Amino acid sequence: MSAAARRPLGVAVLGTAFMGRAHSHAWRNVGAVFPDAPPAAMRVLAGSDPDRTADAAARLGWAEASTDWRATIARDDVDVVDVCTPGHLHAEMAIAALEAGKHVLVEKPLALDADEAERMVAAAAAAPGLAMLGFNYRRVPALALARQLVADGAIGRVRAVRAAYLQDWLADPDAPMTWRLRAETAGSGALGDLGSHAIDQILVLTGERVTGVSGALRTVQPERPGPHGPEPVTVDDAAWAHLDLTGGVTASLEVSRIAVGRKNALQLEVHGTDGAIAFDLERLNELVVTRGRDGWPERVLVTEPTHPHLDGWWPPGHALGWDSTFVAQAADLLRAIESGEQPRPSFADGLAVQRVLDAVGRSSQRGGTRIDLGDGAPTETRTR
Amino acid sequence: MSAAARRPLGVAVLGTAFMGRAHSHAWRNVGAVFPDAPPAAMRVLAGSDPDRTADAAARLGWAEASTDWRATIARDDVDVVDVCTPGHLHAEMAIAALEAGKHVLVEKPLALDADEAERMVAAAAAAPGLAMLGFNYRRVPALALARQLVADGAIGRVRAVRAAYLQDWLADPDAPMTWRLRAETAGSGALGDLGSHAIDQILVLTGERVTGVSGALRTVQPERPGPHGPEPVTVDDAAWAHLDLTGGVTASLEVSRIAVGRKNALQLEVHGTDGAIAFDLERLNELVVTRGRDGWPERVLVTEPTHPHLDGWWPPGHALGWDSTFVAQAADLLRAIESGEQPRPSFADGLAVQRVLDAVGRSSQRGGTRIDLGDGAPTETRTR
Amino acid sequence: MSAAARRPLGVAVLGTAFMGRAHSHAWRNVGAVFPDAPPAAMRVLAGSDPDRTADAAARLGWAEASTDWRATIARDDVDVVDVCTPGHLHAEMAIAALEAGKHVLVEKPLALDADEAERMVAAAAAAPGLAMLGFNYRRVPALALARQLVADGAIGRVRAVRAAYLQDWLADPDAPMTWRLRAETAGSGALGDLGSHAIDQILVLTGERVTGVSGALRTVQPERPGPHGPEPVTVDDAAWAHLDLTGGVTASLEVSRIAVGRKNALQLEVHGTDGAIAFDLERLNELVVTRGRDGWPERVLVTEPTHPHLDGWWPPGHALGWDSTFVAQAADLLRAIESGEQPRPSFADGLAVQRVLDAVGRSSQRGGTRIDLGDGAPTETRTR
Amino acid sequence: MSAAARRPLGVAVLGTAFMGRAHSHAWRNVGAVFPDAPPAAMRVLAGSDPDRTADAAARLGWAEASTDWRATIARDDVDVVDVCTPGHLHAEMAIAALEAGKHVLVEKPLALDADEAERMVAAAAAAPGLAMLGFNYRRVPALALARQLVADGAIGRVRAVRAAYLQDWLADPDAPMTWRLRAETAGSGALGDLGSHAIDQILVLTGERVTGVSGALRTVQPERPGPHGPEPVTVDDAAWAHLDLTGGVTASLEVSRIAVGRKNALQLEVHGTDGAIAFDLERLNELVVTRGRDGWPERVLVTEPTHPHLDGWWPPGHALGWDSTFVAQAADLLRAIESGEQPRPSFADGLAVQRVLDAVGRSSQRGGTRIDLGDGAPTETRTR
Repeated sequence: MSAAARRPLGVAVLGTAFMGRAHSHAWRNVGAVFPDAPPAAMRVLAGSDPDRTADAAARLGWAEASTDWRATIARDDVDVVDVCTPGHLHAEMAIAALEAGKHVLVEKPLALDADEAERMVAAAAAAPGLAMLGFNYRRVPALALARQLVADGAIGRVRAVRAAYLQDWLADPDAPMTWRLRAETAGSGALGDLGSHAIDQILVLTGERVTGVSGALRTVQPERPGPHGPEPVTVDDAAWAHLDLTGGVTASLEVSRIAVGRKNALQLEVHGTDGAIAFDLERLNELVVTRGRDGWPERVLVTEPTHPHLDGWWPPGHALGWDSTFVAQAADLLRAIESGEQPRPSFADGLAVQRVLDAVGRSSQRGGTRIDLGDGAPTETRTR
Repeated sequence: MSAAARRPLGVAVLGTAFMGRAHSHAWRNVGAVFPDAPPAAMRVLAGSDPDRTADAAARLGWAEASTDWRATIARDDVDVVDVCTPGHLHAEMAIAALEAGKHVLVEKPLALDADEAERMVAAAAAAPGLAMLGFNYRRVPALALARQLVADGAIGRVRAVRAAYLQDWLADPDAPMTWRLRAETAGSGALGDLGSHAIDQILVLTGERVTGVSGALRTVQPERPGPHGPEPVTVDDAAWAHLDLTGGVTASLEVSRIAVGRKNALQLEVHGTDGAIAFDLERLNELVVTRGRDGWPERVLVTEPTHPHLDGWWPPGHALGWDSTFVAQAADLLRAIESGEQPRPSFADGLAVQRVLDAVGRSSQRGGTRIDLGDGAPTETRTR
Repeated sequence: MSAAARRPLGVAVLGTAFMGRAHSHAWRNVGAVFPDAPPAAMRVLAGSDPDRTADAAARLGWAEASTDWRATIARDDVDVVDVCTPGHLHAEMAIAALEAGKHVLVEKPLALDADEAERMVAAAAAAPGLAMLGFNYRRVPALALARQLVADGAIGRVRAVRAAYLQDWLADPDAPMTWRLRAETAGSGALGDLGSHAIDQILVLTGERVTGVSGALRTVQPERPGPHGPEPVTVDDAAWAHLDLTGGVTASLEVSRIAVGRKNALQLEVHGTDGAIAFDLERLNELVVTRGRDGWPERVLVTEPTHPHLDGWWPPGHALGWDSTFVAQAADLLRAIESGEQPRPSFADGLAVQRVLDAVGRSSQRGGTRIDLGDGAPTETRTR
Repeated sequence: MSAAARRPLGVAVLGTAFMGRAHSHAWRNVGAVFPDAPPAAMRVLAGSDPDRTADAAARLGWAEASTDWRATIARDDVDVVDVCTPGHLHAEMAIAALEAGKHVLVEKPLALDADEAERMVAAAAAAPGLAMLGFNYRRVPALALARQLVADGAIGRVRAVRAAYLQDWLADPDAPMTWRLRAETAGSGALGDLGSHAIDQILVLTGERVTGVSGALRTVQPERPGPHGPEPVTVDDAAWAHLDLTGGVTASLEVSRIAVGRKNALQLEVHGTDGAIAFDLERLNELVVTRGRDGWPERVLVTEPTHPHLDGWWPPGHALGWDSTFVAQAADLLRAIESGEQPRPSFADGLAVQRVLDAVGRSSQRGGTRIDLGDGAPTETRTR
């Protein structure tokens, strides 16, 4: 059935900031790039400020603007609710939308803590619509290729993963205090923000579950200038963890917001019995693959039509940008709605990441002592 | 004046293939990314096949489809005609659109030869609308930054440029004969296709004009399997040139379609008296800058908001794709229409490139003997 | 005073295997490369096998061969004893040579454990001769430059170090059992072998002391084919540690012998408040330096005459090999003997590394629980 | 027969400067690294200044010093004469040594022009001893591996070579005039100095002969400060050439002494029908190999014992330096003397390079017009 013949799925995005803009980009382009996916119609952009929301809606390609998110999710012509608001609003909005019978996409993080995440998983399980979590890096073509190669056995059995996510925007000791650096407003620091992406990739790339965690959180810059003088920083600006996974796999994790010269370096390295894979988000169109124990690292330019998520774009050698990951994510959600299959990452995938994050924090409080996560299987599975 | 308050400029794209698709991407996203530019409305996509054009128009975001390009450019609600058809149609369509009073954007190459290019330059000079040529690589942020650095004197006085554009899609000796490999249908081979981009960059980066050319064209694979047996390849699949420019600058050029392992490697290196710059399109978000004669090559990730064409996109460290260049190109055309200033590259810029390409071919026919291009100034300037 | 006029210092090397060969290379070339250092004469090579030792001595440039190390260190014409035997012989030989009044160079590891190391430190303190430890990587020009840059404040105050040492020679699950993989013969696995180099660099680059350690050792391949069937591997083949240092510095460490595609990758990254430094031993002539928080990583080719340890070698751009580090080490020992100053690394430096290694092992046994090392100062200092 | 049992070949080096030092390094180490080669004894270092020569001889490991090169080559205990003097002395010394019945190694360039080179080739043909030319880069392990891979067909049939040799020591426009920049004293500029290495590699890597040459020499900085005011530079500081070779191969060449940021960048890229190879001397332990038309560039660390010239050195992953090439060169000469086979490069190999250099110069004088070199075969072969 051609796209033109199908009734489009109505979409609403909640949130007009950075992520609202990135997701709008996705909805605006998904039909052009991936015509095999069901068509989507950009119905409503919902935000808090009337003028800013109206302006953003016009500019970003939305038919309407709204400042009432509850009314928005209640609309009959809205089939998909895409939650791009700050993290503390995710649970309330996503659960309401699921209860209203909508399909829901939630930008990461799923929730502020594991309890909230569990409620969202339960709501998703009970709802008629589909629930998807927005770990967009799963749709970086090079990372999707990495996962494919591992799954196909191209590097043998996975034995170890090195993961780091390094940024430098807090390197300046005199950078001012913000709400992001207070535990009560931000919930978490580098670990939650950067570590969640890295842990999701560790889980996806290996296909294993985390069974034990040792961690350390550090606030390297313990005090920053606030409006009324120096103020303590109460979240981590760097964190480290050592993870044991099922299948005898081990993983290391390091995240930092003070790594000068690194702008957005999500670095992943997977060592198998018969090969290895390396990736750096700062070169997102490249994957370094070592095939065989006597092989050498080869630099694959992941822009071939046979590579994942590439078929709708440009000829070989024409690089994609970071924004392309959201377009592929939107396409996969639309395809899942058509087929009725659970899209990934699911809310349960987000909960699994959240549990590891929580364990890193608890281990850090106990001086690095290993936290046992059992067999790593989700609670709801274990208790049944 | 906010974008919403301005009457949008009506746009029509002629051509539905690869370039029609890339330009449609630009028009679809320009308003969202660059809200400072005047708004544009996607009125008509014109193509030759009715079904395919209708389907593409729907998918790519156009209000209407048409198979009549003459009717399309005659429409009152079309202000901008964007010519994305095969090269042999550029002159006719662009001149007609200019004569119809429209602003015109022509995808490169401007024309098939210098004569045709000169007619287009003349038409542009006589027309009320603006004429722009689509060398999209001018809007790669890293290349725009390179130009800015050179212009600001960051590497001193330019002395030499090394330019190469390497691809490998003809590396297979058994790749079949196509119309692209016959002189009568393609006009030119690697030189015209790849060399034009490289020469435009040599001219832009240095700000100089070419005064003399020595060249060599080679058909490395002289025969390829045709439908009725082996057939001679009558265009070059690799070419070399040595250029003298004003200001004592020298440039070398190498283009190839048989460079195994290079997918889209436009490589540029500029040596100045006090620094150097290097770029590779396969890593389009990076620029390597050496500052000072005792400096070392530093790898700049060109994703900062202060870098050219970046302000409308994402935070630092979030890579842009090849397609972003078309969005910036569209924005610059819209801004030029608003301000009335000549957008660059102009048709005359395209003619200058065409003259160098022609001289490379003539020099090759004469065994590499240098072709004198005088002071490199355009004919129309010289003869006045 | 010219080299020719000075009475040369007589040297003996104990050990004819890999390290005996590398140190012989040093003694053979030190006079040619560093004529400012006092001259040395290659007197005796001592080994266990008479024929092999005689053959090696002739080939490697020694005046005499011996199979009696005690007689060798007793010789009047031997001023410097260079211990290159397996680790379990280091203590006995070094202490005997020190007691015989000789200057002593011991190849790393200093000893098998901290107790033995402490005895050696005590012997060195009591002896008339100088004692030096052979962490040759301290004389990689790029790493010496890194230390210099940090000490000069070029990257501000150090906040974090990332250290990894990755090799792949045990990646094959079917690689046979050897004495190196049994705890009783090898003492330690990847941690002792690779981690010692990395920890020494962490200490040198930061100039700080380790105050707390959390660690994990893993035997990723728990069983290997032995002569009589499968046999348990009783040393680690990968290890991880998280170190707290004085000055608020944090360091991470990862070592592995199963990192496919990495042959000898000692990777170091130092993040300061105002810059960063990165190094990979697989590119030992390069240092990546980021100067300033807004700087970009620049690739320094460390072959300039102004760079450390370079002045006696070749013009800029002429790469040095791994073996050059031993030549510089020998020169520094000779200069220290002339000046009477303690050469670095000292035995105490080796002991400091040994204490961290021991703590990593203890922490791993306790599930990652942090081991407190007090203020990190050496015992002998603390107890006075 | 073991090395110890064979009567060593007596060696004399003529010349005490940079190259005399590099060759002394080779003779000092060849026996230790390559025990399979016949033993050599370092008999005499000959130089012009008595004190400096005596000092250098003592320091570099020579038994004796001499200021009489004619007496040196007449000695019965000298079997090998290694000519490391300035280029204008090569012909006289090498011919004299050959006539004295010695084996001769001449550091590049063979001679100042093709006439002189032809006389040397004739002398070598008539002499009982062997004659070898010192293009040391042939013994860079990565380049020797490249040659081996091409010869084994690993990249299919060679179609094109890109060669560049870039340095920056003349980038400073105010760098003073020296004898190296006057044609009468230096003979040639960047072309002869750097181009000779690059052309030798083009010939070796392809195994073809040059049949036609188009070239351009440029003096980018035409005037430099002399002792009595500005003085014209009369040699090239950059040069370009386009070469046609037998077998349908094409090569491009660019050499420069004003390429800021490039210290010693001999860059070679070979494109075959079924693969490609790339090399940069600034990373001399690495070779980038693309295997197959669908392959990706893999980075080979050329330090494996199975790689050329590596077996006598260190374990995998331990980088070699630039100086190792001279050690391997010495070993190959010694082996050739033992076997009686002609070592390569021969004087005829040097003559072939000289003819191409001359043709580049002539073509440049004629504005780039192609110079026909016939079938590229050496004159002496053609005329027989």
